[in-house]
Amino acid sequence: MIITKKRLAHIVFESDDWASKTFDIVLLGMIFGSIFIAILDSVASLRAKYGEIFFVLEWVFTILFTIEYFLRVWLSREPKGYIFSFFGMVDLLAILPSYLSFFVLNSQLFTVVRALRLLRVIRILKLGRYVAEAEYLTKSLRSSSHKILLFIGFVVTVVLIMGTFMFIIEGPQHGFTSIPIGMYWAIVTLTTVGFGDIYPVTPLGQLVSSLIMLLGYAIIAVPTGIVSSEMAAQKRKDEKAQANNSCPKCRFSPINLTDNYCKNCGEKLF
Amino acid sequence: MIITKKRLAHIVFESDDWASKTFDIVLLGMIFGSIFIAILDSVASLRAKYGEIFFVLEWVFTILFTIEYFLRVWLSREPKGYIFSFFGMVDLLAILPSYLSFFVLNSQLFTVVRALRLLRVIRILKLGRYVAEAEYLTKSLRSSSHKILLFIGFVVTVVLIMGTFMFIIEGPQHGFTSIPIGMYWAIVTLTTVGFGDIYPVTPLGQLVSSLIMLLGYAIIAVPTGIVSSEMAAQKRKDEKAQANNSCPKCRFSPINLTDNYCKNCGEKLF
Amino acid sequence: MIITKKRLAHIVFESDDWASKTFDIVLLGMIFGSIFIAILDSVASLRAKYGEIFFVLEWVFTILFTIEYFLRVWLSREPKGYIFSFFGMVDLLAILPSYLSFFVLNSQLFTVVRALRLLRVIRILKLGRYVAEAEYLTKSLRSSSHKILLFIGFVVTVVLIMGTFMFIIEGPQHGFTSIPIGMYWAIVTLTTVGFGDIYPVTPLGQLVSSLIMLLGYAIIAVPTGIVSSEMAAQKRKDEKAQANNSCPKCRFSPINLTDNYCKNCGEKLF
Amino acid sequence: MIITKKRLAHIVFESDDWASKTFDIVLLGMIFGSIFIAILDSVASLRAKYGEIFFVLEWVFTILFTIEYFLRVWLSREPKGYIFSFFGMVDLLAILPSYLSFFVLNSQLFTVVRALRLLRVIRILKLGRYVAEAEYLTKSLRSSSHKILLFIGFVVTVVLIMGTFMFIIEGPQHGFTSIPIGMYWAIVTLTTVGFGDIYPVTPLGQLVSSLIMLLGYAIIAVPTGIVSSEMAAQKRKDEKAQANNSCPKCRFSPINLTDNYCKNCGEKLF
Repeated sequence: MIITKKRLAHIVFESDDWASKTFDIVLLGMIFGSIFIAILDSVASLRAKYGEIFFVLEWVFTILFTIEYFLRVWLSREPKGYIFSFFGMVDLLAILPSYLSFFVLNSQLFTVVRALRLLRVIRILKLGRYVAEAEYLTKSLRSSSHKILLFIGFVVTVVLIMGTFMFIIEGPQHGFTSIPIGMYWAIVTLTTVGFGDIYPVTPLGQLVSSLIMLLGYAIIAVPTGIVSSEMAAQKRKDEKAQANNSCPKCRFSPINLTDNYCKNCGEKLF
Repeated sequence: MIITKKRLAHIVFESDDWASKTFDIVLLGMIFGSIFIAILDSVASLRAKYGEIFFVLEWVFTILFTIEYFLRVWLSREPKGYIFSFFGMVDLLAILPSYLSFFVLNSQLFTVVRALRLLRVIRILKLGRYVAEAEYLTKSLRSSSHKILLFIGFVVTVVLIMGTFMFIIEGPQHGFTSIPIGMYWAIVTLTTVGFGDIYPVTPLGQLVSSLIMLLGYAIIAVPTGIVSSEMAAQKRKDEKAQANNSCPKCRFSPINLTDNYCKNCGEKLF
Repeated sequence: MIITKKRLAHIVFESDDWASKTFDIVLLGMIFGSIFIAILDSVASLRAKYGEIFFVLEWVFTILFTIEYFLRVWLSREPKGYIFSFFGMVDLLAILPSYLSFFVLNSQLFTVVRALRLLRVIRILKLGRYVAEAEYLTKSLRSSSHKILLFIGFVVTVVLIMGTFMFIIEGPQHGFTSIPIGMYWAIVTLTTVGFGDIYPVTPLGQLVSSLIMLLGYAIIAVPTGIVSSEMAAQKRKDEKAQANNSCPKCRFSPINLTDNYCKNCGEKLF
Repeated sequence: MIITKKRLAHIVFESDDWASKTFDIVLLGMIFGSIFIAILDSVASLRAKYGEIFFVLEWVFTILFTIEYFLRVWLSREPKGYIFSFFGMVDLLAILPSYLSFFVLNSQLFTVVRALRLLRVIRILKLGRYVAEAEYLTKSLRSSSHKILLFIGFVVTVVLIMGTFMFIIEGPQHGFTSIPIGMYWAIVTLTTVGFGDIYPVTPLGQLVSSLIMLLGYAIIAVPTGIVSSEMAAQKRKDEKAQANNSCPKCRFSPINLTDNYCKNCGEKLF
């Protein structure tokens, strides 16, 4: 059986028939497999027992990813464009650390780079049906980004003021050794995480903490309210457009309800 | 007083008259009673004192459940269908462990199986007025399942990357003994639980933690926004249909507002 | 200056002129004052220093509350009706403990009864402008009570199953000494409180915990979604009625937009 | 190059051309720089090493802020009005502490005053595009302020009652040394922070805690619901006005969609 270069490119870059879908699934399996190996390898007891198997498996995955990388370079219409594209860089970064670990002593630092392989999953899933949903979410988030930024600015200000206050009130003898530590504590408290590694001991410190906690409890409502109302508006817009048989973006009407994209502006429909 | 088999089947399977409702309530009481006994039995001090009473009571419940099981098998029109149905299996699993505990030493493992009895409550309540509400909730959740899956995928990715980062930054000497532990910590932090069994000690670790906490605080808004807007849309649809005297599913109109189901498509109304 | 009994009753029971409003404010001040004293009295160091002053002040408040109580009995049109009404009982319970503390040794138990005095605040505020808002909130909550009950049932089931699981997985050696303790831990975790007094140590326990935490993080969206959509619907109904110049309850139209209550059914407007 | 006083006033007070925008950005940089220095200076190890550099930098910033202050006094049309305005006071308070630290021993107390400089950022940002968003948020919050106040009242009542209960149930031997400590714990628990510095030990205390936690988990939905529905209503109002080409406040119609403010009432549009 001879596979033409064109056919191979189709298998690697598309995902609309049996062969190309299988390629994607195998790739997904390999990505998750290599990450799973890296996770298990970090457990001291497992490393002691199966360290060599992990090492071999990691190299098998690396070599396969390398082959895949050069395949992509060779098959893409513009090899240079691919190499310097965002996902081209990710693909390279996903294999490079393994080779570099030959020359560098502390190979553990590369484990986190291997986590970059997860980014490759996004590309593969991007071809799937989750794109529309992701677009819907990001649209909601982007159109409310100003409000969210404003909210983050408010939170940072509260954290700075409260962290400074607690540093002065409680002081180093109760664990608040500096303003950055006070700010770290303020974030731990405001977000209701509350590790308990540092906590107020003086009555005044406990009073100020109580105010921060109630504030944190109240302001969680703000980002939720922003996102909810934004999403509701988005939804209403879609419903209205659907009712009028018109495109939610360009208001072109009438559109065919079975179409997936507006034939006027290319907007994803419903 | 002679009770026919048909009457008995009605009492066991239906819940629309005095006798069948009483049967359901007694059954509910027995289920909660048996679970309550299992809970008390797990408290060492109570076990030492009342262990024998608990043992006897558990057997009384088990025998009654066994009688009920065989009654259901005997009374159902298709005994085989009942035995292999989901709730038939649950009914069997709810009594089997007690008998198996004769042969197996560690009977504590069966306590969790007894918790399965709670599943039986669902069946009994399914016959009640909560079905419509549950359907409403599950409808909202199902129609936003893609968005929720996408969100979970995002959370898992953040957990993996952050867990790996913290394992490298803090290291085993500060409790981050492996990537799985780092991921466990990332979940504890991202969900704002914050046990405090493991926490960052290095300044860099505290900085990265702060980012995770703020992220966790912000992204809680996303699932809430999804569910809220979905529920609001559902509600609007119902209101509109009610206003137009039309079915919310098939738009058949006019429908009788006192009907419980659409006479055209069978959809549950309002 | 002679005050008639009728005038006095007006001052005590109403709050629409200068004298009756002053009476309410003085009463509010006394309630908060007596609670504040009880709080300060519980601090050991303050008690040692100012214990006698607190004791005297508490008795001043008690005597004033007693006078107020008998005044209310004497002034109300139906003394018996008042005595056995909900707020009549609360008024009595607010003063009784102080007198009973003569005969009973452990007077600390009565501190909590004194907190009941806060309930009296509700009555006084009930006459204010917050009633409409409170009604709005309770209406939203009541109309979604079925969904909330269903949700609580789901949470309790999860808590029972997870508590049992953790008791079996972690066992008494890691602090999970019984199923009730396991359930307490499950609630601490599911609600994202996370004290850290008990936490999972075994890998399996940490895995199950992670699932509970993610679940808790996800299902917080459900009650929020329920309440939000309910409130939004309520709001929409009001807006619509306002647009149509009709009462949101009885749909009587036209109503005068400056009215506070519907002249047909008495519903509070806007 | 000679700059007229009028031109200088424009640079300092406005932000619509190159020079005035640069002035604002430099000022922002100085504010953040001086705060950053104060934060670093609180870290004992950094202070030991770079304390002198921090000291010099702080004085450079203080002198520059002083020059800016007198510039503003000199340039403003009504110097007295500026000095006693809110931002005039803030500007003064931002430089005064540094000079006072000559005469007072404990200069650390002034660090928190320096955090006041952040307030100056608000003024500068007020001239930017975030005003409309901030107005939108505050409008939503103000129109639901009654409901939020009612909610806070409810939370405070729960905190008082629960704090008293836990003080009586657990007592000083388990860390609940007084009612204020009990209330502090109740806030820590209700807001789901859960430091773990104090936690229930007795079974009854754990049961009551569980109820508080579930309550805290449920009532978080209320403020979120309030803000969400308020924001959604606000959004709907805007959308409707936009659809009708009318002002959302005075309903003046038709308005020009490219206008930024209603030409009838001056309301900020869209």
